[in-house]
Amino acid sequence: MSFNSFGRVFRFTTWGESHGPALGAIVDGCPPGLALAEADLQPWLDRRRPGQSRFTTQRQEPDQVRILSGVFEGRTTGTPISLMIENVDQRSKDYSEVAKAYRPGHADYAYDAKYGLRDYRGGGRSSARETAARVAAGGVARLVLPEVRIRAWVSEVGGDVATGFDADEIDRNPFFCPDPAAAARWEKLIDAARKDGSSLGAVVTCEALGVPAGWGAPLYAKLDAELAAAMMSINAVKGVEIGDGFAAARLRGEQNADAMRPGAGGPEFASNHAGGIAGGISTGQPVRVRVAFKPTSSIVTPVPTVTREGAPAEIVTKGRHDPCVGIRGAPVVEAMMALVLADQKLLHRAQCG
Amino acid sequence: MSFNSFGRVFRFTTWGESHGPALGAIVDGCPPGLALAEADLQPWLDRRRPGQSRFTTQRQEPDQVRILSGVFEGRTTGTPISLMIENVDQRSKDYSEVAKAYRPGHADYAYDAKYGLRDYRGGGRSSARETAARVAAGGVARLVLPEVRIRAWVSEVGGDVATGFDADEIDRNPFFCPDPAAAARWEKLIDAARKDGSSLGAVVTCEALGVPAGWGAPLYAKLDAELAAAMMSINAVKGVEIGDGFAAARLRGEQNADAMRPGAGGPEFASNHAGGIAGGISTGQPVRVRVAFKPTSSIVTPVPTVTREGAPAEIVTKGRHDPCVGIRGAPVVEAMMALVLADQKLLHRAQCG
Amino acid sequence: MSFNSFGRVFRFTTWGESHGPALGAIVDGCPPGLALAEADLQPWLDRRRPGQSRFTTQRQEPDQVRILSGVFEGRTTGTPISLMIENVDQRSKDYSEVAKAYRPGHADYAYDAKYGLRDYRGGGRSSARETAARVAAGGVARLVLPEVRIRAWVSEVGGDVATGFDADEIDRNPFFCPDPAAAARWEKLIDAARKDGSSLGAVVTCEALGVPAGWGAPLYAKLDAELAAAMMSINAVKGVEIGDGFAAARLRGEQNADAMRPGAGGPEFASNHAGGIAGGISTGQPVRVRVAFKPTSSIVTPVPTVTREGAPAEIVTKGRHDPCVGIRGAPVVEAMMALVLADQKLLHRAQCG
Amino acid sequence: MSFNSFGRVFRFTTWGESHGPALGAIVDGCPPGLALAEADLQPWLDRRRPGQSRFTTQRQEPDQVRILSGVFEGRTTGTPISLMIENVDQRSKDYSEVAKAYRPGHADYAYDAKYGLRDYRGGGRSSARETAARVAAGGVARLVLPEVRIRAWVSEVGGDVATGFDADEIDRNPFFCPDPAAAARWEKLIDAARKDGSSLGAVVTCEALGVPAGWGAPLYAKLDAELAAAMMSINAVKGVEIGDGFAAARLRGEQNADAMRPGAGGPEFASNHAGGIAGGISTGQPVRVRVAFKPTSSIVTPVPTVTREGAPAEIVTKGRHDPCVGIRGAPVVEAMMALVLADQKLLHRAQCG
Repeated sequence: MSFNSFGRVFRFTTWGESHGPALGAIVDGCPPGLALAEADLQPWLDRRRPGQSRFTTQRQEPDQVRILSGVFEGRTTGTPISLMIENVDQRSKDYSEVAKAYRPGHADYAYDAKYGLRDYRGGGRSSARETAARVAAGGVARLVLPEVRIRAWVSEVGGDVATGFDADEIDRNPFFCPDPAAAARWEKLIDAARKDGSSLGAVVTCEALGVPAGWGAPLYAKLDAELAAAMMSINAVKGVEIGDGFAAARLRGEQNADAMRPGAGGPEFASNHAGGIAGGISTGQPVRVRVAFKPTSSIVTPVPTVTREGAPAEIVTKGRHDPCVGIRGAPVVEAMMALVLADQKLLHRAQCG
Repeated sequence: MSFNSFGRVFRFTTWGESHGPALGAIVDGCPPGLALAEADLQPWLDRRRPGQSRFTTQRQEPDQVRILSGVFEGRTTGTPISLMIENVDQRSKDYSEVAKAYRPGHADYAYDAKYGLRDYRGGGRSSARETAARVAAGGVARLVLPEVRIRAWVSEVGGDVATGFDADEIDRNPFFCPDPAAAARWEKLIDAARKDGSSLGAVVTCEALGVPAGWGAPLYAKLDAELAAAMMSINAVKGVEIGDGFAAARLRGEQNADAMRPGAGGPEFASNHAGGIAGGISTGQPVRVRVAFKPTSSIVTPVPTVTREGAPAEIVTKGRHDPCVGIRGAPVVEAMMALVLADQKLLHRAQCG
Repeated sequence: MSFNSFGRVFRFTTWGESHGPALGAIVDGCPPGLALAEADLQPWLDRRRPGQSRFTTQRQEPDQVRILSGVFEGRTTGTPISLMIENVDQRSKDYSEVAKAYRPGHADYAYDAKYGLRDYRGGGRSSARETAARVAAGGVARLVLPEVRIRAWVSEVGGDVATGFDADEIDRNPFFCPDPAAAARWEKLIDAARKDGSSLGAVVTCEALGVPAGWGAPLYAKLDAELAAAMMSINAVKGVEIGDGFAAARLRGEQNADAMRPGAGGPEFASNHAGGIAGGISTGQPVRVRVAFKPTSSIVTPVPTVTREGAPAEIVTKGRHDPCVGIRGAPVVEAMMALVLADQKLLHRAQCG
Repeated sequence: MSFNSFGRVFRFTTWGESHGPALGAIVDGCPPGLALAEADLQPWLDRRRPGQSRFTTQRQEPDQVRILSGVFEGRTTGTPISLMIENVDQRSKDYSEVAKAYRPGHADYAYDAKYGLRDYRGGGRSSARETAARVAAGGVARLVLPEVRIRAWVSEVGGDVATGFDADEIDRNPFFCPDPAAAARWEKLIDAARKDGSSLGAVVTCEALGVPAGWGAPLYAKLDAELAAAMMSINAVKGVEIGDGFAAARLRGEQNADAMRPGAGGPEFASNHAGGIAGGISTGQPVRVRVAFKPTSSIVTPVPTVTREGAPAEIVTKGRHDPCVGIRGAPVVEAMMALVLADQKLLHRAQCG
């Protein structure tokens, strides 16, 4: 099934295609009485918005969010919040070739195999434009979490790792990079990839500070399982790690153990290999996740493919694309973190009061 | 909330603790008319069963599964299938220290923070014994998928990678290792870790062959998102990759593109960087996932910790533990793959006929 | 929680308030490839639309539905279908008194008790205008059910029962009444109630013809349980019966048994006391449900009440209201029947192929 | 699909057939720290237990409930609570005829039409024995609701209405009848029906006292919609009313309005036509529901039917059956009321704190 909803009690549903008239999200289950205006959501959308530098797609979308329901006299009412963003810069003429042949790395063939037809304009529902709706919904989720501070950054582009970390740098460059030296290198890397008609992958790291111990659940709704699903649902994501992730598989037990000592308001931990989650439940340490984005599949380098009728072909994907889609992934990863945590906070309150 | 259920239309719910009288699973939504007897499930449980070599816990559990409902005259009736496995080798005396202090890397502190109490005997609900119930349920899921062949193997132990691959080797050694040379090395590695009172992590790779193109969904029920949640819900898992995973983040667009050419019954692909999934939907290639297991947290090396009352302490985890819990993760990963695919197959049939 | 979604695999979510800019529905899980245009949905909305006779509210709402996503080149794509209806005739000035005191029979007090605030304009989310979104979604559901014919009619108004039945009459009078003689009596009854500043209740009967045997499930997703929830979720509904309903409680076993005899394509039944459902599963007979609507709570007769501050008050509900809200319930009941059956059809296909 | 689960955050799943080895329920999402022992649940099962008078089936089932998980040192741990009840008095030989021909009024034909096979012994999954599992789960739900007092009674048998009401009488007769005069009449009615080889229907009324204002939700998870689904999911139920139900459809607006006046701790109501629910949310008045049970379908009066092969036949249902299944419905209705309210209480806490 389509299942365009996420969450259990704080839930959102998104809709819309790249080249339809609009896209949006319905946020259901939001606590009542929270101050909410469009101006509270717009800054998050602006961070994700394309066309702000030469390192992202040149599609010009203002991404103005409208609140159509669920808010009265500036406060949430507890009823569903409908958020809508109009598409204003579609150029459907760009996509005539995509109608005929399948772009490798894209969902074109898979959609046709599943549904027997597809909206090929800009990838239709599989377009990363859908993530604008998540970012808007994530803005609502943040209101539920005043105690939590979420920040994501790009920690790796094309295999080049940012080794420094200065949180204040993240918003000072077009790469959400916490390391000015790495940002300077990435500028060249991405420019070169763009000129080659190629693209690059990236890794986004996200941390949530202030999550109290106790959110989550033992098994199929584990906090880490929910985060894994949330992150893997983002376009172009191919891997998710909690804490040390795959590196933990190379540690010995005593290296990986996060030793504890008495602290104010609960134990203090000597390390955070676990990424703030044990047994599916938060420990009070920062919740840390790493997300791998593959390189943008839309490239102008020709790739062999087949047509809808099964004939051999070559395809180049013209149009306006991000040379490194992972960069704009950072605000999306933040939004998904907020959406998962808001849901888990309310679930915890339901069961444990 | 607790949420001990997984799946959307083919769903299972597990229950039980390490040291309770039994544990089990309810499988709901199973198609009717499938031939099913306890003997069909037992082999999968036997593969996961502890105590079969010195490389796993010495707890002796026969793990005999009983079918209590949902089967009549040897066939599934379409009503819930209740599976039960009795615990026969609990030794609760082993766990008196765990009652008092928190084992780092374990869920002890998180459970107490969430629930205010915990069943400390063998980790209670957080014990890896719960995975026996999944493996039983997975055996039912396999019946729904006669066209699919699922196989998982351990591809890395303690950072040592199995480079060879011979599928027939997987069941010839106690490590589910497809490479005899690696298996020989791992034997020494694990023995050494055990003697040191330490433990090792591992990586499990799983492939599903025969999945047709078209299973999955575009967004929050993406096939890869469901797999990520399923795998991350397994005890000790800290990372999940689809296809190339994090390595894809270091490829360029043209390297990562899985070029297509005409083939019999659909396109053929020149590579499978995508792990058989594009846009959340299967492409007809093998579905491939990699899963990172942290080293077993139960070690006899002393680790600093705190007591329930907040006093400093040191803890060693005596008892009978797997020196490398990832090894027995292989049958569990297979089960979760089967459970996700069975659900997705039925969901696809629901929407697309 | 808010839970503004209904359905399991064919699912819809509604949003919007009486006096907001718009309201709408997202339909998720719709099969792909179905021909769908706004013109396919508009006739159902037109039947429910207010202001068409003096027997319904005089609010003038064109209720034009727009499809914002999920349809490409005239066919459903399998992705979420966003339906939007603008509110054009709000008169918020009518509701100043409602802000201060609670209208008995309305949700005013309950909303304040739950949420601490409420959108008092026209009842906000509790307004029957929400049912426009259901009717639009129901129009999509009907496309999934070409084999099924659904028809609802008003069978009782203010205790006066329609004894005749001519299906062709249903759309020939403003009461969806299948009996011209009853329609003539109801005209007088409703006119009198309106002049008295009072209101009347009604009973709606709905039948689905052509439902094959086998849709539904044994227990908590019984076809009748799903219908009961669906109908009880409609504003002003206080009772639901399947088949003979409460009258069955006064029959003896042999009277209530629907005897069977051999027929073409399955058994034929001598009667339909069961309303086409046995053990939660359809039998191939017409699925029949009866739904009780209380009298409209908005009346101009003064009723004692309390203010938000807890002071005694009297309230009359001015504004534009239906003197018998059950009448316009008929198209809504049809929509809910279609939505339940579409979901059950797909669920049956999922499990049983 | 099968969907043997009910509830959103406080959820339970039942399993088991009439003639299998056992049946049970898994309760998930229960708050931690509640005192719970088998002795807390047994009294509720004993009330529902068959064979206690000549007015119920003579099947002798002790219905001893066992708690297999989720409780540690006498308190709930927050993890799933597995409840099991063994079947000890199956007599499968009674059901040989049922294998061949369909019993009118039973689910036999519907199950065969859906699943292609059925466990015909005692109705398999469609047996009212399943309700024992609900009653056990309901016993857990009651622990979540110390502020609520739930009581159900039989208010009508075979069309004979209990006009008196003395709560203390309910447990003094085998009919859960609050009116000794009616109980005396029912004794004769049921004896006569039993001697005739016939059966009778009944109506059960249930009230929950102490439900605070604010539980529920505006639309598809309305408190009344959840109750309607819960009650309609019980075997043999054909109708559900909230408050005045169908009688409300015959009232005028001013008759049906529950006038309010200032009271201690919220408004006081002059009447309770609404059954304690407005707009899907509790008002603080008693929550009142009425449930119609059809006459037991198992009767020894011969009824025309067809065989599995489609040949004409006559069937009488021998075996041990309740002459009026609605009587034992009273404890089941109470259990479902408790299960719905526990879920709604936790959901309210999730959203509104």
